Amino acid sequence: MTVAPTATVTAGPGLERLSLNTATTKRWTLAEAVAGCVAAGIPGIGLWRDRVAELGAEKAARLVRDAGLTVTSLCRGGFLTAPDAAGRAAALEDNRRAVEEAAALGTDTLVLVCGGMPGGSRDLPGARRMVADGISALAPYAHQHGVRLAIEPLHPMFCADRAVVSTLGQALDLAEEIGGTHGGDSVGVVVDSYHVWWDPQVEQQIARAGRRIAAFQVCDWVLPLPADALLGRGHVGDGCIDVRALATAVAAAGYQGFTEVEIFNQEIWDTPGEQTLRTLVDRHRSILGEAP
Amino acid sequence: MTVAPTATVTAGPGLERLSLNTATTKRWTLAEAVAGCVAAGIPGIGLWRDRVAELGAEKAARLVRDAGLTVTSLCRGGFLTAPDAAGRAAALEDNRRAVEEAAALGTDTLVLVCGGMPGGSRDLPGARRMVADGISALAPYAHQHGVRLAIEPLHPMFCADRAVVSTLGQALDLAEEIGGTHGGDSVGVVVDSYHVWWDPQVEQQIARAGRRIAAFQVCDWVLPLPADALLGRGHVGDGCIDVRALATAVAAAGYQGFTEVEIFNQEIWDTPGEQTLRTLVDRHRSILGEAP
Repeated sequence: MTVAPTATVTAGPGLERLSLNTATTKRWTLAEAVAGCVAAGIPGIGLWRDRVAELGAEKAARLVRDAGLTVTSLCRGGFLTAPDAAGRAAALEDNRRAVEEAAALGTDTLVLVCGGMPGGSRDLPGARRMVADGISALAPYAHQHGVRLAIEPLHPMFCADRAVVSTLGQALDLAEEIGGTHGGDSVGVVVDSYHVWWDPQVEQQIARAGRRIAAFQVCDWVLPLPADALLGRGHVGDGCIDVRALATAVAAAGYQGFTEVEIFNQEIWDTPGEQTLRTLVDRHRSILGEAP
Repeated sequence: MTVAPTATVTAGPGLERLSLNTATTKRWTLAEAVAGCVAAGIPGIGLWRDRVAELGAEKAARLVRDAGLTVTSLCRGGFLTAPDAAGRAAALEDNRRAVEEAAALGTDTLVLVCGGMPGGSRDLPGARRMVADGISALAPYAHQHGVRLAIEPLHPMFCADRAVVSTLGQALDLAEEIGGTHGGDSVGVVVDSYHVWWDPQVEQQIARAGRRIAAFQVCDWVLPLPADALLGRGHVGDGCIDVRALATAVAAAGYQGFTEVEIFNQEIWDTPGEQTLRTLVDRHRSILGEAP
């Protein structure tokens, strides 16, 4: 695979709004992922900061732009909880760099995984206040850079260690409160099938979210959960989530953006990237093809 | 340890409402668990059906009654979802036996772990309807036997395989709908710290629950999650849940029943039961002692 793709992407039939999140092809460099998308006819790409850092934001932006790809999100900012003020200030500083990178990469969406509970703490409401304060502090800076902070509620199984924002309703409460202060819909939310599918309120909260939906990410819930609970995600169609129903709901709420496939799964990471992308394309066509 | 305890329990100071759920001392027979409670001054016991079955409900009831213990719950009924009508009918039949056992054991609380999604299904709303239908069908029978069905919302990480009832709010919606038809508060809910602690709405839903709270179970969320996600629970105080705050909330809602300690954890199961009960007693006094 060449490092600098010479071709620009042409979306395959039915793939006009499909995006590869680079976490899905974890072993690929950014250049390999870009070339893979071009070859597969996948017009969108969601970027992780580690892969962007390998080239630097400017070079990464040029690589992606030259290939004709749309950057659908930058993953990720957040981790705003810390046991002390210095830690929280350092987190904010890192998030400002992430805002700048998003702007440089030409995406208006910075995904926030908000952070879990500081080690040894039992103060969940306190951790949630830290998150609200952190996003509030970051919002004006993001707004200045034309970047939208996209709060991602994570599955409650990650509440202790990764994100104290656990439901879409909670994320929307935050987004409305902070976005109201800092310019309308400058704070949005991420709808990720893996994190929200179980929620008895998910349909009504997606409808409530409307144009605050900044990104729609998909994968499936596969049993049994692996030893590392982070890695239990599967290809759309391999598990028990009705991803199509969620896609229909976000479309009905007015979301017109890409569907970004983000899968953490050791077996998929061990599969050649080209094969993984073929599966993405097949599942997108067969499962999400008719959804709006 | 003798099989038939000759002594009856005297609750230790501050332990008047402490109950041992027998899943916590998994290796103990029922007779050993009863003797252990008497020795430790723990006046309540929550029973699992497998240990009851070893003796039969009548003998088990006599053993517990002779020891002066209060049976705080029978675990468990439920698993009402099945791919076909025959499976659901068989589940209902098994639940009727559980109702009879609860009545024989002298407890008015049958805990329901409602069941996950039938294998291969992606129809979560359909599975939730099966649960509602099943509890509705069971409620009159339970009411006749003086037994309350206690719907236990399970952590959303168990939605696919164990319980499609994932939040206390959802459990209360069910309990109100079904209980309204079948005699007031004949359908209740279980508040288990492990399952509800992450919920941004937990305090308001506990307040809403009021006297529908049929059981209060406690343990802690300990990181990292083990390979078997079922077994990640720890002693109260060993993790990140503010169990005391939850105890205060259920007391404020009007709950005056026992605090039942239910822990699934291989390391604790491998610990001598007497030692486990000492830890239960210590934690109850130090963490929950002043609560209600």
